[in-house]
Amino acid sequence: MKRIAIDMDEVIADFNTKHLSVFNRDYKENLTVRDLMGTRLRELRPQWKQEILAYLNDPLFFRDLDVMKDSQTVIKELSERYEIFITTAAMEFPSSFAAKYEWLKEHFPFIPEMNFVFCGDKSIIRADYLIDDNARHFQRFNGQGILFSAPHNLNETGYVRVENWLEVRAYFQRSCINSP
Amino acid sequence: MKRIAIDMDEVIADFNTKHLSVFNRDYKENLTVRDLMGTRLRELRPQWKQEILAYLNDPLFFRDLDVMKDSQTVIKELSERYEIFITTAAMEFPSSFAAKYEWLKEHFPFIPEMNFVFCGDKSIIRADYLIDDNARHFQRFNGQGILFSAPHNLNETGYVRVENWLEVRAYFQRSCINSP
Repeated sequence: MKRIAIDMDEVIADFNTKHLSVFNRDYKENLTVRDLMGTRLRELRPQWKQEILAYLNDPLFFRDLDVMKDSQTVIKELSERYEIFITTAAMEFPSSFAAKYEWLKEHFPFIPEMNFVFCGDKSIIRADYLIDDNARHFQRFNGQGILFSAPHNLNETGYVRVENWLEVRAYFQRSCINSP
Repeated sequence: MKRIAIDMDEVIADFNTKHLSVFNRDYKENLTVRDLMGTRLRELRPQWKQEILAYLNDPLFFRDLDVMKDSQTVIKELSERYEIFITTAAMEFPSSFAAKYEWLKEHFPFIPEMNFVFCGDKSIIRADYLIDDNARHFQRFNGQGILFSAPHNLNETGYVRVENWLEVRAYFQRSCINSP
């Protein structure tokens, strides 16, 4: 059975909506995801970079993120034909461990917790596919990287790209037809 | 640069001494590591299995474990010739995340935190070597498993085995000489 590794933030967890919401609230702004196209909040407001990153040290920040549209349905389907692992770069925000774990248990109860991986450098991951919004993780990844579109990566080229989870479903339907 | 993945409990962190100490204190016993040869505390005292495992849910249990003899020196040396990753099956005890992270930062400050991996099923690990006291992790591991001797694994056969960190050093000195 082939294995798909799947990132969390901006792939199955809607990180940007929450991040913008707390930033807008505290800085009396009205930024939307559209403003983040081709950039990141910390690059758009460099004068608040420390504060923008500090939100992520709140142990509860990651606990109530929305689930990305269609991710539960499509991953549930994929789990019947592939081994699914969740691989998240949690070491960047060690206070997020518990919240990320609880979030996964709540929203993806069909994925065994033994298949959760909290890591930093994802070159440690052995999988056939990696679905991630950060192209840097594909550099030393041995399998097929699949770039999940996010505002910050819109200008990245040279990768297999999917816009949403329905496109992930279609990608694996094709790869199923094409594989022997 | 080849990569060595290293487990925590009973490999770099002295799990048994602490576990026996809290058990002996609470149950008025005088068990020693010698009593665990070929077994585990929960098998030796099956009537207290739930309680024995429950100690590990204490968020601080893993924070003050002793460091295994010579592990710091030898891993520091190895880190000059190999990529070192710490790969621990933390998903079995999710309340241990923070303590394990802080313990690693304190005792192995020379290992980048991006090289810490908290996982469950270690078949997700891509490395050339895995040093672990649980032989089950070698079943689906693609590289060379190295069984670190621990009381519970003394009767396991069929694996490369090391008794302590000086033997790990010697193993990699040999593999260095033998590699092209």
